[in-house]
Amino acid sequence: MSLLISSSSKTQQAFLKSVHELYYLRTVAGLLSWDQETMMPPKGAESRAKQLSLISSLHHQRLTSPQFGELLSQIQAESLDADMQPIAREMARDYHRAVKVPIRLVQEMTETASLAYDAWTRARQQADFDSFAPWLEKVFALKKEEARCLGFEKNPYDAHLDDYEPGLNTKIAEKLFAQLRKKVVPLVEYATGKRTDERSISWMRTSYPLPLQERLGREIVRAMGMDWTAGRLDVSPHPFCGGAGPNDVRITTRYSENDFMSSLFGMIHETGHALYEQGLDGQYFGTPLCDTVSLGIHESQSRLWENQVGRSRDFWEFWFPHFKETFPEQTKSLNLEDFYRGINRVERSLIRIDADELTYNLHIVLRFELEQGIFENQLAVKDLDAVWKEKMRGYLHVVPSHSGEGVLQDVHWSSGLVGYFPTYVLGNLYGAQFYHQANKDIPDLRAQIRAGNLTPLRQWLREKIHRHGRRYSAAQLVENVTGEPPTVDYFIKYLEEKFGN
Amino acid sequence: MSLLISSSSKTQQAFLKSVHELYYLRTVAGLLSWDQETMMPPKGAESRAKQLSLISSLHHQRLTSPQFGELLSQIQAESLDADMQPIAREMARDYHRAVKVPIRLVQEMTETASLAYDAWTRARQQADFDSFAPWLEKVFALKKEEARCLGFEKNPYDAHLDDYEPGLNTKIAEKLFAQLRKKVVPLVEYATGKRTDERSISWMRTSYPLPLQERLGREIVRAMGMDWTAGRLDVSPHPFCGGAGPNDVRITTRYSENDFMSSLFGMIHETGHALYEQGLDGQYFGTPLCDTVSLGIHESQSRLWENQVGRSRDFWEFWFPHFKETFPEQTKSLNLEDFYRGINRVERSLIRIDADELTYNLHIVLRFELEQGIFENQLAVKDLDAVWKEKMRGYLHVVPSHSGEGVLQDVHWSSGLVGYFPTYVLGNLYGAQFYHQANKDIPDLRAQIRAGNLTPLRQWLREKIHRHGRRYSAAQLVENVTGEPPTVDYFIKYLEEKFGN
Repeated sequence: MSLLISSSSKTQQAFLKSVHELYYLRTVAGLLSWDQETMMPPKGAESRAKQLSLISSLHHQRLTSPQFGELLSQIQAESLDADMQPIAREMARDYHRAVKVPIRLVQEMTETASLAYDAWTRARQQADFDSFAPWLEKVFALKKEEARCLGFEKNPYDAHLDDYEPGLNTKIAEKLFAQLRKKVVPLVEYATGKRTDERSISWMRTSYPLPLQERLGREIVRAMGMDWTAGRLDVSPHPFCGGAGPNDVRITTRYSENDFMSSLFGMIHETGHALYEQGLDGQYFGTPLCDTVSLGIHESQSRLWENQVGRSRDFWEFWFPHFKETFPEQTKSLNLEDFYRGINRVERSLIRIDADELTYNLHIVLRFELEQGIFENQLAVKDLDAVWKEKMRGYLHVVPSHSGEGVLQDVHWSSGLVGYFPTYVLGNLYGAQFYHQANKDIPDLRAQIRAGNLTPLRQWLREKIHRHGRRYSAAQLVENVTGEPPTVDYFIKYLEEKFGN
Repeated sequence: MSLLISSSSKTQQAFLKSVHELYYLRTVAGLLSWDQETMMPPKGAESRAKQLSLISSLHHQRLTSPQFGELLSQIQAESLDADMQPIAREMARDYHRAVKVPIRLVQEMTETASLAYDAWTRARQQADFDSFAPWLEKVFALKKEEARCLGFEKNPYDAHLDDYEPGLNTKIAEKLFAQLRKKVVPLVEYATGKRTDERSISWMRTSYPLPLQERLGREIVRAMGMDWTAGRLDVSPHPFCGGAGPNDVRITTRYSENDFMSSLFGMIHETGHALYEQGLDGQYFGTPLCDTVSLGIHESQSRLWENQVGRSRDFWEFWFPHFKETFPEQTKSLNLEDFYRGINRVERSLIRIDADELTYNLHIVLRFELEQGIFENQLAVKDLDAVWKEKMRGYLHVVPSHSGEGVLQDVHWSSGLVGYFPTYVLGNLYGAQFYHQANKDIPDLRAQIRAGNLTPLRQWLREKIHRHGRRYSAAQLVENVTGEPPTVDYFIKYLEEKFGN
């Protein structure tokens, strides 16, 4: 950072100082949130909510302050070098989005989300969509108002898609999701038509002692290249990757005695996120050039490691013997082929977070279509429960028996996260496109993975993706790395090769 | 808190809102510091320093802002109820102290402390006082300047004594320490004249498996009344009590296989601090009425539990059988009397933090006299090393062979903590005075402790001390509880009974 600062004008130095302070406030909030999920005693919850709300309002005040706006205008009038240009551009994006939404609306959204979250928790337990519907009405109404403040070209939904994935809009997403749906529905038909071999799943449900789960998990995380001097692994109810910046990246998992694979693939997934953060370029610390570019790119890193690598035969050629060595009793009669089939079996199921990597996409397509319907006023919130069931029947031939395993299963909407789901699928698309390119750039990549050497892949990801921070948009980054704009083709091809005939 | 707010005027509500925000910023800093010592990966250190410095400067800005000063003047002009009066008084104290010190001096002190701390770390390793002396010169010069800004009646040292122990000044401290020195020096002579019985110490140095140390430690902490739903116990290099407020109190200890007593008494000590925090009155949350009154009172709670209770025969009549049960091998030939003598043996030693509860006081007397000498310009910083050795010879008949085990042993001065040491001894005095009173108020207190029931003592402490927060000054609180102003008498009496003939 010192280089960056010393080479810049007085105004630029003042600007960077403010940018750093904004960044430190965000990382403070990051640590408070991590602690809330992992360490905080229950009675700390009320204060923690207040602490987080204070820090985020301080961040908002500073970002939207006239002083910061003035600094931004001043440096935009200067001639900026190749680093300061994208820093100014990205801070301007953050600034303009923040000033467009009146503080009154921000507060109303925060309060509504807090109350809606409580209502959702109760409604889900009682599988009572009707009690939650009024809250959902309010959330969507506020999100529509927010979209009007933010502005959009054609569809108000665009404003929210662009929030989580800068550059994304309804038209692009619609096209991607239509192509995906068209290919995935018949693939699911085919893959679920095959008889499940009992040998390929019975080993999963036996007992795996937690300390050994953690030991093997940590070995794999380490082999992926996690820097333990700049990160941690802990336990939380919902696995996540968080912490206090690229030098302090904290991942979590949860252990269940009878479901080691869930914890293990959770660790691999979160480590994919962590490697992205740790791979950012430290010389730009505290600026958008040392920050992750979008949720879609973030998710591409976790899914590439979890699915493309972690659920491949290549990966397990090296790790399967370690797995058997760690759990000799549990895996006595298990061979690699049955193991591979087990971790890749396809099942039509109701719950998104339990879905395999093939059917998962249809869960997201469904949510995208519902969000789009509501924003285009073609669908009423009160009908969501019924339309959900109908679409599940159409795409996956399974129908929730109650709303708790249907429209009420996800926390996102209650928390105001609208337009967020599509980034999960973008992660799949980007991940497949990146992995295809990595194999072209590193011809012996699969052989390296079979030999247990994950370093070439991690270095490639750092060089091509991680270190660029927010220098390029997500779509531009994909094109820089792969020579093509984002496409569904590589992901479809991957799914067909893995799950087709 | 809601009651307090609803019963107050609009100005008072605005004032309390600011007071709460200041409080939340402090607790955020508390959590960041706790995490730094317990959880943070090493590479997080640089960012953490920036985060902490940002939060503390935000706190300082808000406390010293003209808006807050204005609110304070306005509510002081109103007629305030019995709760708002002390809240306004204590916030005015904090405000006036903060505005008196120019931000330039605050920053210079922070930077100097950071550099002096580094210099101290190196100097201590190399036992090289001369390399540290210039830094110490600078620290004391800044502390003298700070004292001039803060103002004082007679001696500039008063300003710093009053900082850590509101109401304390050189005259009061001088009298207390003179009385203490006069009594303790001969007591040490007597107690160290007795031959040490090998049986009373050999058991201490055998091996105690860490998980069992933790298990027994947690049992005792629980019996003392620690609320685990509002607190945690973790491991850190230096034990402390911190966290994010009375509903989230976090203590730490360190375990050493061959020194269980150090970890155990550390836990008891920190739990004494934690019970004070957890015992504050939640209806005043976020205000000075739900905050600890002084370091001396804080230390009285830890030392009362650690020494008056934790090193008493009464306490171990109940816990010694548990100790033997947990470590049957290590304690095979140990009886209660030898155990008691072991945990209470007196030794002339060089290092304050390893000292027993009798000689400890002389280590503090020495530091007080040196600080006083410097502030009265009767002692030069360059002579500290020599005067230290001379005083150690006089009080304890032991002389450091190098400055690493002498004047360089404590971190405090390098960090700008001048006037802090005396609060350790005040803790001893207050603690003894409180415990004497507790035994008067609860006639069967010792019998209860012998039966393992620590609840009556904890309830008494909560009722008499904890719940009052900063409503009364430390000295007033001592007088309210015991009917007398603070005195050395009860502590001397306690030491004489325990260590005299």
